Parts: sequence; C-alpha cells; structure tokens
Amino acid sequence: MRSETELDAGDCRTLLERGVVGRIAFWAEDGPRIHPVNYSVLDDAVLVRTLPTSALARVAQESPGAPVAFEVDGLDHADQRGWSVQARGPVERLTDPEAVVELERVRPPRTWAPGERTVVVRLCWTELTGRCLGTGWDPVRDQDYRRLR
Amino acid sequence: MRSETELDAGDCRTLLERGVVGRIAFWAEDGPRIHPVNYSVLDDAVLVRTLPTSALARVAQESPGAPVAFEVDGLDHADQRGWSVQARGPVERLTDPEAVVELERVRPPRTWAPGERTVVVRLCWTELTGRCLGTGWDPVRDQDYRRLR
Repeated sequence: MRSETELDAGDCRTLLERGVVGRIAFWAEDGPRIHPVNYSVLDDAVLVRTLPTSALARVAQESPGAPVAFEVDGLDHADQRGWSVQARGPVERLTDPEAVVELERVRPPRTWAPGERTVVVRLCWTELTGRCLGTGWDPVRDQDYRRLR
Repeated sequence: MRSETELDAGDCRTLLERGVVGRIAFWAEDGPRIHPVNYSVLDDAVLVRTLPTSALARVAQESPGAPVAFEVDGLDHADQRGWSVQARGPVERLTDPEAVVELERVRPPRTWAPGERTVVVRLCWTELTGRCLGTGWDPVRDQDYRRLR
C-alpha cells in the first residue's frame, strides 16, 4: 500500500539544513529554469553562491523580491520511496558586507562547481513544505548523508 | 582541480531516458513550484502522470503551451561531483485517447505516489542541456540506476 504524508515543519527544516545540494527554480527571460546548486541554511533563508554572469544572479540583481522555489529531496530507487522539501519565497542578492562576512564565518555555502562565485543569493522563505512517500521509514532518521558543519 | 563540462545531446538524452524521478518546475498562481515526479520519455517529450486536482494539471489544462522546465540529476556526495540534465519547453495535457493508449503500451510513466493519477502531462522539449561536475568519471557509464523498460 503506497502512502504519501506531509512532513511537519520541524522535519522540513532538519532535512533542509542537512542538505548539500538542492535545486532552485526561477523565471528567466525565456521561462522557468531549474539549476542544481550547493547551498546553506541560515535563519529562515537558503543561501546560494553563484557566478556574477549566471541567470540566477541576474534575476536576483534585476528583480529583487522575485518569487523563487528551492527543492531538496532524497530518493530510494530500490524501494520506490522518497522525500522532498520545498522552500518558496522572494529572492535577493546579499549585498551587505557584514552579512556576507557573517555568513562566511557561520555557515558558508560551499560549492562543488568551479569559478569565482562571488555573488551570494538569498531566498528568505515564506513557505516551507515537504512530503514523504512510502511507509516504514523515517526520512530524517534514515538520511544517508548530511552536512555536519 | 574542479571542472564543469557541458554534456552533449546524446548523453543528455541517454541520462534523461534512463531516469525514474525528475523535478518539474512551473509557474503556479503564486509563483514557481518544483515538484518531484516520476516520468517517462517518449520521442522528444517528457511524460508525467498527475492528479486531476494538482497544480501541475491545472497549468497544463488552463495554460496549454506554458513554458516549464524539467530536471534530472545524479549526485555523488562522497566525491562532490554530479551531473544534471534540463529539458525546457511548452507543457500540455495529453488528451488524445490513442496517444494515451500508445503511451501505456510503449513507455508508461510509473508513479511511486498513490492516488488516481489520471491526467498525463507532456513536455515537448525545445531545449535539452546538461552539465557534469568533476573529472575522471563518466555520468553515463557510472550511473547507479536506470530504467530498463
């Protein structure tokens, strides 16, 4: 028997905070895009480091406050189950030098990708939701990786 | 030394065809959403089965031709590398009964989630791109799961 349940706010936050890679969706000039990105969570915001020339940087720079969506998930192909968490809210470029320094000190987004990713983009979520497919498992307990610091 | 390379069209297609779960991004009434979904690929289209009441069904029904983005990826947390493929194009509801029957016969999208997912949504891509992070591996050769039929 398949089942789908909503994750509570605490589990959504835990899973989001532990993550390393998520996907950000935003509206570019020619429609929606989804980009996988490294990220970190600080307070009620998702932080992403990007190239100054990226489409995401352009949206944050030229359309501050534009709504975006960010998603992380965990998939178990063997048992056909999984979880996902989605954060939605306005995006902006983080420009305050003190905030950037504090972010670097406390919880920097660490990128796998190359390049001088000098632009930090912040999504302050107004909605945080999640769901879980399948029974007999706990996505928080059974997560097979996590960011430790 | 980190590196990022573009995947060629053949690799993008292979990785997309082998996949089981991807994420579709679309513009709902209140901004972008990202939903993880099971899917299948037939010809140059991504096919997704959804609930008649879902936000995705609503977009396909009420705004046929609206641009959407679909993404699949593979992440290797241990080695901090990964690949992703993105298909972009207009979305529509598949309503032709013969096309639905043919899809069921040839390559049905099989869902992990419960519910009567009677609506089939089709994304005929106009753009298919992908990228790969890290050297010394081949995302097509090293993929650790794939749809076989």
